[in-house]
Amino acid sequence: MQTASSDDKREYSLRRSGRPFTKDFRVFFERTHDKVPVSPFHDISLYHDKENGVLNMVVEIPRWSNAKFEISRNESLNPIHQDTLDSRPRFVKSTFPYKGYIWNYGALPQTWEDPHRTHPDTHARGDDDPLDACEIGRAIARTGAVKRVKPLGVLGLLDEGETDWKVLVIDVEDPLADKVHDVHDVETHFPGLLDATRDWFRVYKIPDGGKGNDFAFGGEWKGKGYAEKVIGECEDAWKKLIKGEAKKGEISLDNTTLKGTPGKLDPEKVHLPKDEHMSPAPVDEDLDEWFYVDRDAVDAEEEPLEGSDLRIVLELG
Amino acid sequence: MQTASSDDKREYSLRRSGRPFTKDFRVFFERTHDKVPVSPFHDISLYHDKENGVLNMVVEIPRWSNAKFEISRNESLNPIHQDTLDSRPRFVKSTFPYKGYIWNYGALPQTWEDPHRTHPDTHARGDDDPLDACEIGRAIARTGAVKRVKPLGVLGLLDEGETDWKVLVIDVEDPLADKVHDVHDVETHFPGLLDATRDWFRVYKIPDGGKGNDFAFGGEWKGKGYAEKVIGECEDAWKKLIKGEAKKGEISLDNTTLKGTPGKLDPEKVHLPKDEHMSPAPVDEDLDEWFYVDRDAVDAEEEPLEGSDLRIVLELG
Repeated sequence: MQTASSDDKREYSLRRSGRPFTKDFRVFFERTHDKVPVSPFHDISLYHDKENGVLNMVVEIPRWSNAKFEISRNESLNPIHQDTLDSRPRFVKSTFPYKGYIWNYGALPQTWEDPHRTHPDTHARGDDDPLDACEIGRAIARTGAVKRVKPLGVLGLLDEGETDWKVLVIDVEDPLADKVHDVHDVETHFPGLLDATRDWFRVYKIPDGGKGNDFAFGGEWKGKGYAEKVIGECEDAWKKLIKGEAKKGEISLDNTTLKGTPGKLDPEKVHLPKDEHMSPAPVDEDLDEWFYVDRDAVDAEEEPLEGSDLRIVLELG
Repeated sequence: MQTASSDDKREYSLRRSGRPFTKDFRVFFERTHDKVPVSPFHDISLYHDKENGVLNMVVEIPRWSNAKFEISRNESLNPIHQDTLDSRPRFVKSTFPYKGYIWNYGALPQTWEDPHRTHPDTHARGDDDPLDACEIGRAIARTGAVKRVKPLGVLGLLDEGETDWKVLVIDVEDPLADKVHDVHDVETHFPGLLDATRDWFRVYKIPDGGKGNDFAFGGEWKGKGYAEKVIGECEDAWKKLIKGEAKKGEISLDNTTLKGTPGKLDPEKVHLPKDEHMSPAPVDEDLDEWFYVDRDAVDAEEEPLEGSDLRIVLELG
């Protein structure tokens, strides 16, 4: 099982079509052994080994890179594409002292953060995406890699008022995986990473004119047990979604393996584009830029209910 | 003056021979307009515009990269080569939360940290190299670029007992250059960079088994005036060196422009290799690894004179 994800034996293969860093770029998935096209959102199972708590994770963004690749919710078979900002391919700016994303970033398949449900702990609705995962192992992963990971903890990001859980995970094949079981072990073996992760999510939209993000639980990391609870909730939400029992909006439920679901396709009739594996398009030089964010100023912004304005509001109330 | 360093008008051109990331790789310099080979250590002038305090800086290591390129002291005309560690090309490990070098790193030409002189403020001898510079502008520079920069401050690194000044500079063409004049302005416009720079130099050798570095002045940043004083001292030391008035050790004094110096060569008789500009050799996967250093443990290591051992030492003394 440990070797099954090495390159020569990997369970899923990629069909990369179009040039990376353009709007045309897509990464489709197929099962390696029988070439059946699959959706990384719906067909790849959440659990690789449920008894031992090993999950599958679909890598979207390799560590230290900036292109905002993500599973497309709405396109058939949910290929990875690059998100856009102002109708151009989106690159997340590097915020000092970080270079790009500081983990291998991706999604847990067969999960969904239901936008119609207000979470009792965060008091905010889901963000309509699969659960996000931050993989902290030493290796830099490729976009489209399917990793076997175990959850360590979770951070309750509130992104523009939506619940957007960030599950911290580690590749079970990482040399440190056997020593890291919960969020406390992360601080021991990866000192500074928990604080840096919170800080990264707090400030990452500011260079593009956004605001500092907030967190549920005052930014406190929740441990493995809570992470598993969140994963279970989002698995349940996905199960309703895929059965057609939830308001799906624009989400494509197309899949090739889930019998009896409304989105089930005949794999014989699905034709993926061929694997072109093109060289990336040139990117803007301003991607080189490092953005400095004054953390004290971001914190100060967070205290609107202070001073004389507050007193007047209270008196009027 | 501002446009003279743009690509089409740059004063120096490169002859890149051998494959990057191999021991054969060399970057030689020549004057663009008349193809005269030059030494980046001796022939490129320290001052681009002395009246306005504008220096030349030779870039060795681009921001966010890891290969330890440096001017060769000992080879004729001092090409840039890659330093070695255990007789293999050296890559500085990425220490969390940083990716590679966090500035464009390089040298100030026509300066020398004299290894035979104990500096009165650091109480340590020089490291036998040209002065190091950290350029903080937004653009990522190329290895071998000659930038016009202005000094902002200096950090007194003590690297294995040697004085190894790190001069903080900014490209005069950077959009922020007109707003940044001294070390205080750096904290305003690049919040966190001064602390991160000190932290980077403190820990960067630890992943390779080294110790945490120390600093003169308890790690305090010295401002522009002190930086200019250090630059002047190292310029004076280089002047003695190039005239043959200092113990030069293995250093090559070969140059093509400094009349009356013992190392002066006839440029007609110097033949540089051609500019091959080869693709880089593949690098080890372990360069992907991120190394975590517990800063508290490094600090604790620094306090040997504490507790009962100290009392015994004092009593015996």
